[in-house]
Amino acid sequence: MFKKTFLTGAVVLIIVSFITMSWAAELSPIKLPPPNLKGGKSLMQSLQARKSSRDFSAKKLPVEVLSNLLWAAHGINRPESGKRTAPSAVNWQEVDIYVAIADGLYLYNAKEHTLKPVIKQDIRALTGKQLFVKEAPVNLIYVADYSRMGKANAEERSSYAAADTGFIAQNVYLYCASEGLATVIRGSIDRDVLAKAMRLRDSQKIIFSQTVGYPE
Amino acid sequence: MFKKTFLTGAVVLIIVSFITMSWAAELSPIKLPPPNLKGGKSLMQSLQARKSSRDFSAKKLPVEVLSNLLWAAHGINRPESGKRTAPSAVNWQEVDIYVAIADGLYLYNAKEHTLKPVIKQDIRALTGKQLFVKEAPVNLIYVADYSRMGKANAEERSSYAAADTGFIAQNVYLYCASEGLATVIRGSIDRDVLAKAMRLRDSQKIIFSQTVGYPE
Repeated sequence: MFKKTFLTGAVVLIIVSFITMSWAAELSPIKLPPPNLKGGKSLMQSLQARKSSRDFSAKKLPVEVLSNLLWAAHGINRPESGKRTAPSAVNWQEVDIYVAIADGLYLYNAKEHTLKPVIKQDIRALTGKQLFVKEAPVNLIYVADYSRMGKANAEERSSYAAADTGFIAQNVYLYCASEGLATVIRGSIDRDVLAKAMRLRDSQKIIFSQTVGYPE
Repeated sequence: MFKKTFLTGAVVLIIVSFITMSWAAELSPIKLPPPNLKGGKSLMQSLQARKSSRDFSAKKLPVEVLSNLLWAAHGINRPESGKRTAPSAVNWQEVDIYVAIADGLYLYNAKEHTLKPVIKQDIRALTGKQLFVKEAPVNLIYVADYSRMGKANAEERSSYAAADTGFIAQNVYLYCASEGLATVIRGSIDRDVLAKAMRLRDSQKIIFSQTVGYPE
């Protein structure tokens, strides 16, 4: 009896490990180069150039641009405290940035400034209902983890997670304005389908998605 | 009978006019100078300096700084379309910025780049529960007008208004970082009391408030 249970358990474990590995097995972490904090436009000139664009070239973003973009969005700007370029209610830092590119889906780890592999699958087409999402090189998906939001009630969670996403997304808008990239934030998403494809936990909620690329 | 009704009506009209005038009668509109789009830090340096501060000097902000701050926050950066430095869902532009200073409460009019008088009363102390709000020179109050949000349902209105406020507030954070000003966004507000003091319409909802001033 014990032997049988043990064997069944071992087989289940092997299968689960295999599935988990196969999600991200061949997808390697991406070590982002240090962000380049020199150059670019002034803040006021970036604000003047800020706009939403829906015409994207399929051209990929170099890793240096991805590094700057993610640091600007939600990087750590005060290493001593781990605080970020965007504020969050009660410093919950509940919003994570997932990065959907042709190679697969990654999670931005601000502390290590790396992209952690999530799934080796191109899910760009699932990140929104617009046609351009599957052609543009990068779709950021802002996901709030409600389990980090203390005792906030449902309405507060929803409102704070939306505002905290807004802070981050505006950084992305301004970085794109500074660098001549195209971007648009989008709320028209089939969240159930996308959450399933991303294999999110129950406490994780998709807030918005934002497409980034070179202008067409 | 007619005479009595007419007289009562006239008296009521006079009283109402008197009250309305006394709200803002002696408070003149403030014509803001054109924003200065030259100078200031780069975007990346502003992001590096971005932080929340809760120690404010009582020193007033010059009108030139107020002009730059409000244009950065939510000014018109594309006069041909009336589009702004911050995006909004469906371009509803539903978030207004009210400005509480010692002289009274004003409404930022982006099109004219002016401050319209609302009430001649110092309501800074009502803009939040923290002690610093009544000493700091400027408290911005972000108010969404739900009547501009089309057919969005209650949850969508709340979520979009919060995100749209986040975009604007991050512009304020970055302008303050660029200019060495202190700022913090706050959600701890007695919204009913503040809405009454501001004489908001039923369709208007206070989202957050943000304090701005020189560092202590």
